[in-house]
Amino acid sequence: MSLLVVGTLAYDTIETPAGRVEEVLGGAATYFSVAASFFCDVRLVGVVGEDFRTEDRSLLEGRGIDLTGLLVAPGASFRWSGSYLEDLNVAETRATHLNVLEGYEPRLPEEYRDAPFVFLANAPPALQALVLDQVNKGAFVAADTMNLWIDTAREELLEILRRVDLLVCNDQEAVSISGQDNLIRAGRALLELGPRYAIVKKGEHGAMLFGKDLDYAVPAYPVPEVVDPTGAGDSFAGGVMGSLAGAGAVTGNELRRAIIRGSVVASFTVEAFSLGRLAGLTREEIDRRIETFLSYFAQP
Amino acid sequence: MSLLVVGTLAYDTIETPAGRVEEVLGGAATYFSVAASFFCDVRLVGVVGEDFRTEDRSLLEGRGIDLTGLLVAPGASFRWSGSYLEDLNVAETRATHLNVLEGYEPRLPEEYRDAPFVFLANAPPALQALVLDQVNKGAFVAADTMNLWIDTAREELLEILRRVDLLVCNDQEAVSISGQDNLIRAGRALLELGPRYAIVKKGEHGAMLFGKDLDYAVPAYPVPEVVDPTGAGDSFAGGVMGSLAGAGAVTGNELRRAIIRGSVVASFTVEAFSLGRLAGLTREEIDRRIETFLSYFAQP
Repeated sequence: MSLLVVGTLAYDTIETPAGRVEEVLGGAATYFSVAASFFCDVRLVGVVGEDFRTEDRSLLEGRGIDLTGLLVAPGASFRWSGSYLEDLNVAETRATHLNVLEGYEPRLPEEYRDAPFVFLANAPPALQALVLDQVNKGAFVAADTMNLWIDTAREELLEILRRVDLLVCNDQEAVSISGQDNLIRAGRALLELGPRYAIVKKGEHGAMLFGKDLDYAVPAYPVPEVVDPTGAGDSFAGGVMGSLAGAGAVTGNELRRAIIRGSVVASFTVEAFSLGRLAGLTREEIDRRIETFLSYFAQP
Repeated sequence: MSLLVVGTLAYDTIETPAGRVEEVLGGAATYFSVAASFFCDVRLVGVVGEDFRTEDRSLLEGRGIDLTGLLVAPGASFRWSGSYLEDLNVAETRATHLNVLEGYEPRLPEEYRDAPFVFLANAPPALQALVLDQVNKGAFVAADTMNLWIDTAREELLEILRRVDLLVCNDQEAVSISGQDNLIRAGRALLELGPRYAIVKKGEHGAMLFGKDLDYAVPAYPVPEVVDPTGAGDSFAGGVMGSLAGAGAVTGNELRRAIIRGSVVASFTVEAFSLGRLAGLTREEIDRRIETFLSYFAQP
């Protein structure tokens, strides 16, 4: 089944202990859609400026991603600049230039509206609501968010939570949203706010899934050389939602499989700057790493 | 097979968000030996003062722990006082009174020297060396340590690492000892320093095992109400070493099983102050929780 993602495409300038890159392809929807494209058909809704490079469009098209919903607007593409020099687990934002994102309101092409799986990447909750208004009622919808909206648009965010099936967030966000500092309690408390499922990402410590009568945890795939953590969370979410859309079903087992696939795709993402590793990745490489990953936490 | 532990017994005063207790039974060897006693015969070497309470001795004896090696010395038992008000993962030490520990040098009863499994709980490396001199060459020896010795007695600690089979330490200690801030690299680097295996404890994020051609990770058993984290790491180590000693063999599968048992025993420890939960625990309760735990990270 097909998967719709609405989110940002960006040019990033990033500094990590491994080095510095400028104006490289990034953005939540970019990482998400490429990660998901290994498992299902992906339709992307977002906006870029006239400076969006042909090779970057080709990269996405080469992965079979449907760009009918990608608007090219007058002006420059969204820019983000960040560093991970203090702590590889925490991005320190140095600059954000909204550019074409300013005032952008996502519009779904008519043929996208029946997508059975939908992902709302991090965005102001009001924009996420605008997308929700345009998708089919029966879709399985997942959303990401960030601390900024938890702090500044809490009510709108809570309204989104009541309307989605799955919340994907990191550990700090789970704590902030729920007010619980124990992650198990936090994850369970998220379910009280609306979604049927919640996935809490813990970076190098893996991820946890919460559902009614369903708690699940995986460690992270062991990566000894993290070059750039940017996009890891979005790639993880892309692997998760891509896997579910590919299966066409959301069951406990499919969710477990999805989280494992998401973890493995994210483990490739962090091995290079930007989409350096994801771009040339093959499904065979992913499947081989999944085998290794499963043995990493095999039961005795 | 039997398991020898050398370490501290203490009276603790502890404050956590759940409350405050004074002069309760604690100490690394106490938690370790009770946890291990569910899986094998345990022999304890340590020292207490004349104030060591009869009911506390009875608790240990009731678990079948051999106290031939427990010295009762003139003076007061070791006291530790700490709080976890800032962060449940980090104990802030408020006071340490060595009392009978001052100048104590562990002597193994003759009949303890052939113990096939040995655990050196956290202690000055010079004292751990003194114990190593007294045990059989063929024993499988594990050791714990703490940042204090990494900082102040590094050379002696490195000498210990060359003499033991398994190092059990937490994530911060693994980073400090190895100089690697990526935990995967840190764990692998520990093996270069001598031990055949290293286990890195990550508190609420579980544990990782490193060995030649053996990487393994488990999440932590999900505990929604952590009352007191004191002794979690020692209970974990007790479960691990008790399980290995009970099996009488150290293989990849037995190590995996051991880490799972250690995680589960530790999950009981943190549910109450002191040994409040461990003391009345049964093997049936442990086995039931192991079943639940295995489903928590079952593969799809």
